[in-house]
Amino acid sequence: MFSTMQDGNLSIATLLRHGAKVHATAEVTTWTGTGGRSATFAEVGVEAARLANALRGLGVTGDQRVGTFMWNNQEHLTAYLAVPAMGAVLHTLNVRLFPEQLTYIVNHAEDHAIIVDASIAPLLSKILPGCPTVQHVIVANGPVEALTAPEHVTVHSYADLLASASSDFDWPDVDERAAAAMCYTSGTTGNPKGVVYSHRSIWLHSMQVCMPDGMQISSSDRTLVIVPQFHAMSWGIPYAAFMTGASLVMPDRFLQPEPLAQMIATLKPTQSAAVPTIWQGVLAYLDQNPADLSSLREVVVGGAACPPAMMHAFSEKYGLYIVHAWGMTETSPLGTLSRPPAGISEDETWRYRYTQGRLPAGVTARLIGEDGQEVPWDGESVGELEVRGPWIAGAYYKPEPEDAAKFVDGWLRTGDVGTLTPDGFLTLTDRSKDIIKSGGEWISSVELENHVMAHPSVAEAAVVGIPDPKWDERPLVAVVLRPGASATAAELRDFLDPKVAKWQLPENWTFVEEVPKTSVGKFDKKVIRAAHAQGKLDVKHLD
Amino acid sequence: MFSTMQDGNLSIATLLRHGAKVHATAEVTTWTGTGGRSATFAEVGVEAARLANALRGLGVTGDQRVGTFMWNNQEHLTAYLAVPAMGAVLHTLNVRLFPEQLTYIVNHAEDHAIIVDASIAPLLSKILPGCPTVQHVIVANGPVEALTAPEHVTVHSYADLLASASSDFDWPDVDERAAAAMCYTSGTTGNPKGVVYSHRSIWLHSMQVCMPDGMQISSSDRTLVIVPQFHAMSWGIPYAAFMTGASLVMPDRFLQPEPLAQMIATLKPTQSAAVPTIWQGVLAYLDQNPADLSSLREVVVGGAACPPAMMHAFSEKYGLYIVHAWGMTETSPLGTLSRPPAGISEDETWRYRYTQGRLPAGVTARLIGEDGQEVPWDGESVGELEVRGPWIAGAYYKPEPEDAAKFVDGWLRTGDVGTLTPDGFLTLTDRSKDIIKSGGEWISSVELENHVMAHPSVAEAAVVGIPDPKWDERPLVAVVLRPGASATAAELRDFLDPKVAKWQLPENWTFVEEVPKTSVGKFDKKVIRAAHAQGKLDVKHLD
Repeated sequence: MFSTMQDGNLSIATLLRHGAKVHATAEVTTWTGTGGRSATFAEVGVEAARLANALRGLGVTGDQRVGTFMWNNQEHLTAYLAVPAMGAVLHTLNVRLFPEQLTYIVNHAEDHAIIVDASIAPLLSKILPGCPTVQHVIVANGPVEALTAPEHVTVHSYADLLASASSDFDWPDVDERAAAAMCYTSGTTGNPKGVVYSHRSIWLHSMQVCMPDGMQISSSDRTLVIVPQFHAMSWGIPYAAFMTGASLVMPDRFLQPEPLAQMIATLKPTQSAAVPTIWQGVLAYLDQNPADLSSLREVVVGGAACPPAMMHAFSEKYGLYIVHAWGMTETSPLGTLSRPPAGISEDETWRYRYTQGRLPAGVTARLIGEDGQEVPWDGESVGELEVRGPWIAGAYYKPEPEDAAKFVDGWLRTGDVGTLTPDGFLTLTDRSKDIIKSGGEWISSVELENHVMAHPSVAEAAVVGIPDPKWDERPLVAVVLRPGASATAAELRDFLDPKVAKWQLPENWTFVEEVPKTSVGKFDKKVIRAAHAQGKLDVKHLD
Repeated sequence: MFSTMQDGNLSIATLLRHGAKVHATAEVTTWTGTGGRSATFAEVGVEAARLANALRGLGVTGDQRVGTFMWNNQEHLTAYLAVPAMGAVLHTLNVRLFPEQLTYIVNHAEDHAIIVDASIAPLLSKILPGCPTVQHVIVANGPVEALTAPEHVTVHSYADLLASASSDFDWPDVDERAAAAMCYTSGTTGNPKGVVYSHRSIWLHSMQVCMPDGMQISSSDRTLVIVPQFHAMSWGIPYAAFMTGASLVMPDRFLQPEPLAQMIATLKPTQSAAVPTIWQGVLAYLDQNPADLSSLREVVVGGAACPPAMMHAFSEKYGLYIVHAWGMTETSPLGTLSRPPAGISEDETWRYRYTQGRLPAGVTARLIGEDGQEVPWDGESVGELEVRGPWIAGAYYKPEPEDAAKFVDGWLRTGDVGTLTPDGFLTLTDRSKDIIKSGGEWISSVELENHVMAHPSVAEAAVVGIPDPKWDERPLVAVVLRPGASATAAELRDFLDPKVAKWQLPENWTFVEEVPKTSVGKFDKKVIRAAHAQGKLDVKHLD
């Protein structure tokens, strides 16, 4: 007995048509450095049709990959919609990767065309000679001369190409399980891994992004999208906007605290999202340069653990509500998001807000202990998080033999280690590779970092395990002090003393100018470990 | 190139497992007449496993249909979850249908077993002799003796059956497009039509129900589910609750204004949903018996057009926010829901709130005019609404030849007539069969009703077209006056005079004790037309 329901068309084309028609007057506003330039969703719909016609004219057919090497802006939003809607595959390229990684990714995905912002065209120019599949590069937001291209590449102006393209495009029907977009994870070991999202996974994920227990995005919102469009599909916000009619504010290349504060004060977004390091920077800037953040209902922070001290500082100083979330490229990325239960005390509410959040119905989870067995959801037992669901990757694109270990019996092994409460709230204590194994026990590097970062003199702190002849590993704390502040290693250890078990108290401290970051803004601990191994750090060892 | 994403399992079993585990402490509270009896979602999960084992023990296999003839209560919620999760098909039977219609429906669906509330078992007893496929009836919430069964039916006690069943059930994997549940529409002509929902359609619909631009259901909610579980899957709220952890308040058979007001005052729901006639009754009751409604954030009203006068009365007298929505059994049912845009005046906000609401991304629509061509979305051009999408029916179960006209080129013809604004807000002016065709023009019966119901002496009003030798049809208004109030036909016509075009002003008026209602609480206009045709109405004809 089969259902009598329609299949419907869970496609990006449906989202595009819906947003451009029902939410014709919603806007995307791109920061120019001094203000915003805006286009309505109806105009973006027309621009998407022109882009699709232009790409078709350049020979893009079937499921060919079209790369983007762009900031968050109107043209990137247009590519998000046009490329999958025409049946091709959007490949967002991380503009902060090393040239060798970029070259690998472009070749692995076999990108046929790439759209690039003129401001970063020189970076792309460097790798094009090593990318034989790329036949066309389209330069947006600036002169084509910004790009230097090898012979096998034809260079086009985005503006000129679209001006001569038809504003009608007959969006094809696509299988909802067909590839819509791809993003490579900036793996810390081995080659980058490609995740290929389907039209279906994007639809379901977009709905979850909008849910009241998700990011609560609605037609009444104006969302400042700081999380890059090249980073895990911008956490699904561009598609959620076309699904619901939320307006968008795009910062383009202006990701420094000062312009971000300006954008918030002048364009008055209701909601935002970014990794914690961005907000740490905004917080430090605001301490010197107060700005009006009152339009923001809340900001979602994820991509790395959000230090509780930062959540409190924003709450107390600026009345800003930070929502903690967890996800990864392989999870589309929304995995968990923390909305405390109703009717509990303020203290309890904070304890829930510190967690990475609650599992939605679309993400099923289990924790696997060191012995390979499931551990209970008691808020204490620690295990590696495994997840599955309709917006979770089940494989990597063109997998290599070692990738098989990442996907077990239909579960994605996240590489994140933590606990689950009986009511499904996740607390991550570490990445499995960052856990410090000391005397047969585990020390959470993230927990130590959060405690150190709660010290008023500390701007940032990263903790790694370093070899120890007696204990196997011991923690090393790399500290960045606030401008003008001072604190000694002994003072910081004394500050930690009442907060952690004695045997976890770090003896090894180093003061650095900045914590090295990965291309997506996370602490890059392998750089710290390497610097330590090479004797490049000035380590203070306390007795 | 295929996506690397998992399919996930969009099944009721996934919802059941999720709700029972992650939202273990959420509750369903069933009204007993004097208070509430509660069970946690964890307990409902165990009860569902017991019910599935019990049904398997009675021989329910594959996609056999299990009927429910029940009020809204914990046991009905359990059946909502257990029956589809075990791979069988839940068939909700409307307890207000005539016996001949019920018999037709049970036989058409070939129900194998039926779960019945003892309080309405006598109604079921009447039809069982004519239902040869039914082998088992399970009596819940009362003694098995309440049922009189023919020889081919074995009668069981719900409580006894579950007490002896295992509390573990290995929920099978099902194809997401497989049938999960079915509901027959109470068609006003011909035989009832069966709509068969899939696991997939229920999942997607549940997400839309929860969205901020939908019913905004979250883990912080406690929802009073007045809309019957036998009516269009209770507007998706039971499944939305297991998806998000919203607690539920179930009124059981206590659907009169007095117990509803009591439930609201004592159980403090945050949200509710019902057809307008229910809320009209509550409003009239409250005028005499004030009660505390302050726990309610809002109530969703749909199933029939919501009179603006009622929205204003609830707002002004009780501070209660009514959200207007539209849908039908064939649309799961959420089609549109009215959330006005942000940043507009109060007057404009009200104009949006009067509409049936905005199209979500999952519902694509068009309006077809009398000439079969699409009419523009200009807020003025009138046409029949056609819709399509992943929770819209594409056929009826075991279709009859005449059903083909209802489904055209992948569109569902709704039979509703109205307008769409450029920003996708739907205003229904009538059912296509209720429109009054007068002198070559259309008169909206719903618009006239809303104007008459805005008169302070009027409790209810229904308008039908009656034959007219000169104009083809003219409107007849059937009026129910408020208790103790008085108004003449002439006074009411004078009240209408400034509000509608002269040629639309009704000459024909009749005063009745009550407006006849269909089994789902809508005005039953064919009964009024028949009464008029048979000369049973005392019609006052104004010059």
